[in-house]
Amino acid sequence: MNALIVYWHPEPKSFNHALFETAQTALAAAGWSVETSDLNAMGFDPVSSRANFLGVKDPDFLKLQLEEMHASETGGFSPLLEQEMQKLERCELMIWQFPLWWFGLPAALKGWVDRVFAMGRVYGGGRIYETGTCRGKRALLSLTTGGPAEAYAADGFNGDIDAILRPIQRGMLEFIGFDVLAPHIVYAPARMGDAPRCEALANFARRLSAIANEPPVTVGRY
Amino acid sequence: MNALIVYWHPEPKSFNHALFETAQTALAAAGWSVETSDLNAMGFDPVSSRANFLGVKDPDFLKLQLEEMHASETGGFSPLLEQEMQKLERCELMIWQFPLWWFGLPAALKGWVDRVFAMGRVYGGGRIYETGTCRGKRALLSLTTGGPAEAYAADGFNGDIDAILRPIQRGMLEFIGFDVLAPHIVYAPARMGDAPRCEALANFARRLSAIANEPPVTVGRY
Repeated sequence: MNALIVYWHPEPKSFNHALFETAQTALAAAGWSVETSDLNAMGFDPVSSRANFLGVKDPDFLKLQLEEMHASETGGFSPLLEQEMQKLERCELMIWQFPLWWFGLPAALKGWVDRVFAMGRVYGGGRIYETGTCRGKRALLSLTTGGPAEAYAADGFNGDIDAILRPIQRGMLEFIGFDVLAPHIVYAPARMGDAPRCEALANFARRLSAIANEPPVTVGRY
Repeated sequence: MNALIVYWHPEPKSFNHALFETAQTALAAAGWSVETSDLNAMGFDPVSSRANFLGVKDPDFLKLQLEEMHASETGGFSPLLEQEMQKLERCELMIWQFPLWWFGLPAALKGWVDRVFAMGRVYGGGRIYETGTCRGKRALLSLTTGGPAEAYAADGFNGDIDAILRPIQRGMLEFIGFDVLAPHIVYAPARMGDAPRCEALANFARRLSAIANEPPVTVGRY
């Protein structure tokens, strides 16, 4: 059983980082082989460009999907993207660990998606959603928020967290074929003391220790 | 009347770029003073870090909101961010021009939000939504999609485009106080010939020529 954890936070002493480390330990203890992409430590550049590719299909006009199709046919992705794509292909469980920023992924993680989810290699040619290349694999969003849980209730001032996460769970993960597990959310850790933080880490470890048997949720259409 | 257009696409010959140029011309003709942020031309780095700031509040732990609060009090944003914040503050109309990628903003534009929408300066202290710092200003998403319009209908295979855009319109724009105009969407320009493309540019110009009097829509809660 192979797991991939993709993580971004700018501070290695952050609670997000503690969740990232907790996940590695808990999964390993449960028998998973764990790979990671610590995007901050990697200095990962989130901006798509010709640097995604070793070669060039059309030197006069940069249409990324065209270049992605070409690179998919010729093994022409940059070593960095090739490495990340192979991690994606090897994993049976993928976890994204991040702070929710502006109702979405921080730019570094969004750019990992923009660059790694390449047409031809990862999707396309009719292979989306139920026929996606990642069918049979499961994905988990593990995130922290600034605001408290009440703010993300259906009648809270930010609104339903499930609707906020739907473009990520539906438009990125289910789009390429993943089954999505219920998101793991720690609300407002910045306002927590040490004891509740430790409890939150233990809760995450407990969930991950049994995640091999956890059924996915249905995100579905809007 | 001041307008700000924030734009990202990696190809200067793209249809997105044509929309960007069309907007500048149409707004200028209608009497607007237009500022732009061409994030690709600027080589804008979307990743938040200590480079956002001139000074340091806490050298031992990077909590971006804390550093943002400190920089807001001390005039301590990097010259680049200070410039972008002043453009945001000067404008009465803000347009984001971008290709919809993975149901969201491309990483470069998401990172512009992550870095420029700073706590203290742009929001916080009770100033969110109806009391946001940008109340009275209007914002317009101008975007292109890969898929056709049918794919983004409520019963289409991607689902309702309004729900897809809600985290952006609600969680970024309305969050800091903007009134949001109905999004301007050109579906699947990559599959269009020259005549429909020209027509789409003319439609956008026509809309912008009268945008000073266009009422906002209600995005609202989920």
